[in-house]
Amino acid sequence: MTLSAELWPDVQPDAARRLMLAAVESFAERGYHATTTRDIAAAAGMSPAALYVHFPSKAALLFAISKSGHEQTLILVESVAGRADSPRQRMRSIVEDFVAWHARRHTVARVVQYELQALPEQQYAVVADLRRRIEHLVRDVIAEGVKAGEFTVTDLRTAARAVLSLGVDVARWYSDRAGKTPKALGREYGDLVLRMLGATV
Amino acid sequence: MTLSAELWPDVQPDAARRLMLAAVESFAERGYHATTTRDIAAAAGMSPAALYVHFPSKAALLFAISKSGHEQTLILVESVAGRADSPRQRMRSIVEDFVAWHARRHTVARVVQYELQALPEQQYAVVADLRRRIEHLVRDVIAEGVKAGEFTVTDLRTAARAVLSLGVDVARWYSDRAGKTPKALGREYGDLVLRMLGATV
Repeated sequence: MTLSAELWPDVQPDAARRLMLAAVESFAERGYHATTTRDIAAAAGMSPAALYVHFPSKAALLFAISKSGHEQTLILVESVAGRADSPRQRMRSIVEDFVAWHARRHTVARVVQYELQALPEQQYAVVADLRRRIEHLVRDVIAEGVKAGEFTVTDLRTAARAVLSLGVDVARWYSDRAGKTPKALGREYGDLVLRMLGATV
Repeated sequence: MTLSAELWPDVQPDAARRLMLAAVESFAERGYHATTTRDIAAAAGMSPAALYVHFPSKAALLFAISKSGHEQTLILVESVAGRADSPRQRMRSIVEDFVAWHARRHTVARVVQYELQALPEQQYAVVADLRRRIEHLVRDVIAEGVKAGEFTVTDLRTAARAVLSLGVDVARWYSDRAGKTPKALGREYGDLVLRMLGATV
C-alpha cells in the first residue's frame, strides 16, 4: 500500500491522495502561506490544471487534510470512550492511541494541529466542532473517573486540555530518530496521564 | 513601558525591538517563509533600508527572537533549578514559571517554538544547545527527586520531555480569552506535573 493510501483510505481517486500528501510535505517544509498550488502540483508530479480537477484551491487541500486528521482522531477517541471498561482503562487506551497517532503521523499531524488558523471561516468552524467533540469525550471520561473515585481532578477542563496537549505536542518533537516507537511512547504517556489524573498506576 | 521593551529589555536601540515585535506579529500571522523583510519593515513603520541597519536578513531577525526566547526560558529554569529547595518545590516553581511564560508570551512563544526549522544551520545549533540545557536542567531536578524518594519515574528522558511539552503546548492554545490568567494556569499545571512525576500533591 502507498503511504497516501494508508493515510487517507477513504479518499478517492489515488491522484487526490497524492495531492494531499504533496500538500502535507510542502506545508510542513515552508508553511501553508508560502506554498503555491503550483508547488503542490509539481511535488505530486502533476500539472496545476490536474490539481484543480480534484481541489478548487489550496485552502480546499488544507481543509481536506485538516478535516480528515481530526475525524481520524475523533473516531479513535470515540471508539474507546464508548467501551464498557472502567474510566481508567478507557483513559489509558485513549492516550495510547492518541499519542501513537501523533507520533506515527507526525508530519500530517503538524499540519493538522498547527495550520488551523489558515482555514477559511466556514471550514474552520467544521474543524473547531470536531475539536470540541474530541475534548468533550476526554472530559467526560475524566468526569466519570472522578465520579467512580478513580481520578482526583481539580478542574476538568484544564485536565482534559493537558491530556490532549501532551499528545498534540508529540507531533512537534517526534521524529523517526526519537529512539522510541509510537506504541512504546503511547504506553509511557498512558502511565504519565493516569498519574496526572490522580489514579494509582 | 512599551510591549517590545518589556519583551526584550536587553535589546537596544528601540528601533531593533520594534522590528523584532513586527517580525513576531508577521511570522505569527502568515508564517516565516511567506513573510518578507519589506512586510516587517512596513509593520514597524520603517523603510526596508532602516531594517537592514539593525538586521542583515529575515533569518537574523528570526534568530534574535528565537535566541532571546530560549535564553529567557533557560534563565527562568536555571534560577529555580539551582535553589536549595527540595526537588519537589523546585519542580513546582519551574512548571509555574515555564507555563506562565508560554501563556503570557504566547505569540512570541509560538515563533520561538514552531519556527525553529527555518533557522540557518549555525544559528539552529546555538538554539538547539539552549534547548538541550533547558531539558537537562529539568531532567536533573527529576533525577534528584527520584533519588530523594520524592518522585517515581520510569524514564527520566520521557518524563522531562512531557513536563516541557505541557508548557510548550500552552503557546499553541492559550489566548487572552482562555479564561485563566497565566499565573493561575501555571499553578494548576504545577499540581498536574507533580502528580505525573509520582509526588503526592
